[in-house]
Amino acid sequence: MNEPLPVAVVGASGYTGAELVRLLLGHPGVRIACVTANKRAGEKLADVFPQFRGLVDLTLEALDAAAVAQRCRVAFLALPYGESGAIAGDLHARGVTVLDLSADLRLHDTLEHQRWYGHDAAQELRAQAVYGLPELHREGLAGATLVAVPGCYPTASLLALAPLVRSGLVSTEGLIIDAKSGVSGAGRNPAPHTHYPEAAEGVRAYGVAGHRHTPEIEQELSEVAGRSVRVTFTPHLLPMSRGMLAVCYGRAAAPAAELRAALLDAYRAERFVEVVDRPPDTSHVRGSNRAHVFATVDERTGQAIAMAAIDNLVKGASGQAVQCMNLALGFEEDEGLRGAGVFP
Amino acid sequence: MNEPLPVAVVGASGYTGAELVRLLLGHPGVRIACVTANKRAGEKLADVFPQFRGLVDLTLEALDAAAVAQRCRVAFLALPYGESGAIAGDLHARGVTVLDLSADLRLHDTLEHQRWYGHDAAQELRAQAVYGLPELHREGLAGATLVAVPGCYPTASLLALAPLVRSGLVSTEGLIIDAKSGVSGAGRNPAPHTHYPEAAEGVRAYGVAGHRHTPEIEQELSEVAGRSVRVTFTPHLLPMSRGMLAVCYGRAAAPAAELRAALLDAYRAERFVEVVDRPPDTSHVRGSNRAHVFATVDERTGQAIAMAAIDNLVKGASGQAVQCMNLALGFEEDEGLRGAGVFP
Amino acid sequence: MNEPLPVAVVGASGYTGAELVRLLLGHPGVRIACVTANKRAGEKLADVFPQFRGLVDLTLEALDAAAVAQRCRVAFLALPYGESGAIAGDLHARGVTVLDLSADLRLHDTLEHQRWYGHDAAQELRAQAVYGLPELHREGLAGATLVAVPGCYPTASLLALAPLVRSGLVSTEGLIIDAKSGVSGAGRNPAPHTHYPEAAEGVRAYGVAGHRHTPEIEQELSEVAGRSVRVTFTPHLLPMSRGMLAVCYGRAAAPAAELRAALLDAYRAERFVEVVDRPPDTSHVRGSNRAHVFATVDERTGQAIAMAAIDNLVKGASGQAVQCMNLALGFEEDEGLRGAGVFP
Amino acid sequence: MNEPLPVAVVGASGYTGAELVRLLLGHPGVRIACVTANKRAGEKLADVFPQFRGLVDLTLEALDAAAVAQRCRVAFLALPYGESGAIAGDLHARGVTVLDLSADLRLHDTLEHQRWYGHDAAQELRAQAVYGLPELHREGLAGATLVAVPGCYPTASLLALAPLVRSGLVSTEGLIIDAKSGVSGAGRNPAPHTHYPEAAEGVRAYGVAGHRHTPEIEQELSEVAGRSVRVTFTPHLLPMSRGMLAVCYGRAAAPAAELRAALLDAYRAERFVEVVDRPPDTSHVRGSNRAHVFATVDERTGQAIAMAAIDNLVKGASGQAVQCMNLALGFEEDEGLRGAGVFP
Repeated sequence: MNEPLPVAVVGASGYTGAELVRLLLGHPGVRIACVTANKRAGEKLADVFPQFRGLVDLTLEALDAAAVAQRCRVAFLALPYGESGAIAGDLHARGVTVLDLSADLRLHDTLEHQRWYGHDAAQELRAQAVYGLPELHREGLAGATLVAVPGCYPTASLLALAPLVRSGLVSTEGLIIDAKSGVSGAGRNPAPHTHYPEAAEGVRAYGVAGHRHTPEIEQELSEVAGRSVRVTFTPHLLPMSRGMLAVCYGRAAAPAAELRAALLDAYRAERFVEVVDRPPDTSHVRGSNRAHVFATVDERTGQAIAMAAIDNLVKGASGQAVQCMNLALGFEEDEGLRGAGVFP
Repeated sequence: MNEPLPVAVVGASGYTGAELVRLLLGHPGVRIACVTANKRAGEKLADVFPQFRGLVDLTLEALDAAAVAQRCRVAFLALPYGESGAIAGDLHARGVTVLDLSADLRLHDTLEHQRWYGHDAAQELRAQAVYGLPELHREGLAGATLVAVPGCYPTASLLALAPLVRSGLVSTEGLIIDAKSGVSGAGRNPAPHTHYPEAAEGVRAYGVAGHRHTPEIEQELSEVAGRSVRVTFTPHLLPMSRGMLAVCYGRAAAPAAELRAALLDAYRAERFVEVVDRPPDTSHVRGSNRAHVFATVDERTGQAIAMAAIDNLVKGASGQAVQCMNLALGFEEDEGLRGAGVFP
Repeated sequence: MNEPLPVAVVGASGYTGAELVRLLLGHPGVRIACVTANKRAGEKLADVFPQFRGLVDLTLEALDAAAVAQRCRVAFLALPYGESGAIAGDLHARGVTVLDLSADLRLHDTLEHQRWYGHDAAQELRAQAVYGLPELHREGLAGATLVAVPGCYPTASLLALAPLVRSGLVSTEGLIIDAKSGVSGAGRNPAPHTHYPEAAEGVRAYGVAGHRHTPEIEQELSEVAGRSVRVTFTPHLLPMSRGMLAVCYGRAAAPAAELRAALLDAYRAERFVEVVDRPPDTSHVRGSNRAHVFATVDERTGQAIAMAAIDNLVKGASGQAVQCMNLALGFEEDEGLRGAGVFP
Repeated sequence: MNEPLPVAVVGASGYTGAELVRLLLGHPGVRIACVTANKRAGEKLADVFPQFRGLVDLTLEALDAAAVAQRCRVAFLALPYGESGAIAGDLHARGVTVLDLSADLRLHDTLEHQRWYGHDAAQELRAQAVYGLPELHREGLAGATLVAVPGCYPTASLLALAPLVRSGLVSTEGLIIDAKSGVSGAGRNPAPHTHYPEAAEGVRAYGVAGHRHTPEIEQELSEVAGRSVRVTFTPHLLPMSRGMLAVCYGRAAAPAAELRAALLDAYRAERFVEVVDRPPDTSHVRGSNRAHVFATVDERTGQAIAMAAIDNLVKGASGQAVQCMNLALGFEEDEGLRGAGVFP
């Protein structure tokens, strides 16, 4: 067996950072050599995240790209958008394989990026990044050194819709995605709307007609459709910590059985995607890198309804990043990711 | 002041029954004279629902329509569909004003009723019942003696959509309603999918393309549209006890400001409906008879998005039934219903 | 009927402030004439708390004691400890009846106050304040103009223990109170430990062997016992928004039936306290001013176990303040407080 | 590497059964050869627990001890008490190593067993069973072929108390254990008190002064104390699916630092027990076999307060069973159990 590869988790004081650590601890091919978090530099990771007491003896460092590049072959960036791109570029230029979990490198189109994000620190770098949804871009990921790991909403939406759009079974006109997310998707910084008494026992939409994950979804659907696709995307915050359910609507061009067959066909060889025969429950994928997808048609109205349930922090972020690393570096695709959902 | 009217709550061992009791206790115009629950007859209501300890000294009785009619002027029926219609007919024939919270009397069209419910114990009675959504049928409710109180999903959906459909601001083609419900909507009987560990911290759709509240929504939208309307309706079970959010999609025929103006216009004089300027949160109407409605347009796609948040047990059931009674009997419309939401 | 009394809610942007508004809206003897919140002055209360949309048309003001005194006869102070005492004194000196929900005026002993709070802005005022637990101090509350409304933990603990300690049925040596609180007890300001993903689906103790509600409990128990009493007090944060359960342990001097009889005897004439025959559930008092108390003895070990369940924001704060006002001003004790718990 | 051992999970349709499957899937030394569940025989495990879709292709069988013994070397019994003992005996007689998660084999004293359980199907077998708390009985577990895996409450209580009682730092007189459990501890069968709307957002004690886990705790504490110990034990049901916190009170015979030192000393070499310096949070051990323990002294009252947080389904049941198997069969003690807590 080879020596485990030294990897860095940059931005390890947030939820996706902690989830990367949890998953990488179970990956025999790597060794976490460095964890960074500028604001909490000097603290033990196990004090910031007590679930690691007795398992991880790492101290959070301030980010120093040169030092990371010297000690690590791979870096996962779990940083806010706007900050991540420049660091990705710096590390990548130093020869580090970079898995960027932020939005900075996901959009191919510069104008589109500027329209939604209003800044653009990483224009040239974006052209080199592979969009890290393995179920769509597995070939591009082999040997990749710079990966833009998708957001949680795009991951769920695309897993549900891409095979149906690609095969023409669902019209690309009037697509609607009504998505439901757990609160961990908002990160670890306390805020009024994520304060327990405000978030528990209630539901609300947010970012209506303007959420920044929209263009990512459109970019990828346009690519599989072979023409420009627009979607109406409505995210919701639900009283649960983890979990994401994307419920997608579009005019059906075929009966339910054909939609289901298209999903089965698309995902037959996939290790992480299950086509289920009942509407999927996010509880069943909690803590795992798995996706449960489903499609049917409302025969009275002709609407196709496609769904995908994932754990927003795993298949929607950190697990997917590890899956991308596995493909990029030639590990087994599910190395470190074989765990079943933690239910209940 | 007149003597309070004696009223009966038939089916008082379930959640909507208990909510009727809670609300009626605060209504100066009525006196709860009888509570029934066949399976728990002989038990104190305050043992079945300890929130009433010290406040209610009533014993659950087996239902005896003659006895109810003798002692009560008004009966609220909080019974399962299929059982309720016959009892409603019996009590009504005996001169009792009946507020039926079941689905038995809601659909005007006999074939439609049979298609969705498969039985039909109350065909003739249905013709006499007023559909008890005051915001649509206030005039018919004045003096009514038989009211079919709407379901929770139709209430939320219609409050969001009816003004927009009536005014033609949203197309009646391709309407989609993605609705989110708290678990109390499933009643008080334990079931596998409502077992705490299965329902907490997860979300799933159910009744996809076949939920029985669909025809009620279509009946009422067709009436306001002046033509037959079909909707794709997808209910979801969320990890919260109370609350319902209906998120409705349809092609917009006007910009957001006009939709919003139509809502404001429709609800200006309504006591329970607020047009809010941000996506509504079910937490803010919890425990109250209030509805928060909202509409906007995704200008990139032309989709209108209309929402309504209610408490499924209050405006979606028991509170609305009391509101209907108030209108039917000439009380102030908000008598017993003036409480604000219990937040947090 | 007399003109409703004008009252002020000082600190109306927090949870106890909002709960005061909710309860006072249903009180026919008062009219909310003023709501203050320095940091949010100028905002509509209904924007800060959307549950009041359509029900309250008040704008939050910066606190100006002279202005409050001019317009209001009564002021409820829902302010942080340390800030509240001086304002209470100012308003009281201007002739306003003050219900202070903070800890500033609760402890009679100056040294004790300084030991636990480390400051003392209100030493002389404390001597004039009545400790506002009506079940212990009803007589002192009649005509009171300055009331120190108890904390939520003391209220629950004292309702469970006081009758047993007074009657000598439980030893005052080695008393232990293990208390469980909902997250709203921590207030509305977001903090790491109240962030939804950190607070949901888990439990932990806090303030172990040092929570500031301890001396209040001891002061009142010492008074009923007629000698100095010390308690070991352990509060816990639970994944629920509202609710408080105090579970109290002490050596029993009599069998369970006598303890239960002592509770029944103490609370026979009380409107808000129910002696229940099973361990009480906080769900059954949610949203109401009611307390469910219970006592038994573990006959194998001789330990008495006494419990009380309340809603921390109602009987543990705002409801109790209204109850105190009713007694102070001669209203019916339960005016504005007759609602049953909102269950589920 | 040796061939993986074939193991059976008997009672695989409940939560502890599913958790055994989840953990054993990650254990390289074993292979799940058989899963049984009499009531659901013939169903796919992955249909009964969709988290296993794509990961487990096993069908639930009716239990046939001979068939299990023929195909499996090890059996985990996740059955109700009263049923489990006889099956354990049968399998054990056939040469199968048995890990029994029920209460049937835990108590050494026959009278005590009969007093608490009222039946006794396994009197002789109990004498042969090792009480499977590795932190107390590691030596007895080496080579054991019959293990009585402790309950969740005893595990948490003993991890907190045993080192303190053994060393005499806490008095054995007047011990109190106030324990808080997630709802999954009640199993997968729906019941009124575990119905989501009844269990969410509230807390209550149950089994007060009579819970059947009491004698187990007393048996083990008596053994470490060297004299008969009685405890007052009060379990509570909390609104969370997983997690258990035992908070234990007893008179301290030494200051906090000595208690803490005793815990550190006891657990220095333990792989799963962490002595933490703040009150532990069940969230931090969720999904893992880890325990976080803590002790302090209330210096004002002389009470010691010791706490342990575990996941009731892992260290409190299935994880501990796997740990026992590892010790019994000579695997690494943490094989299959190295995962960190799934937080948030």
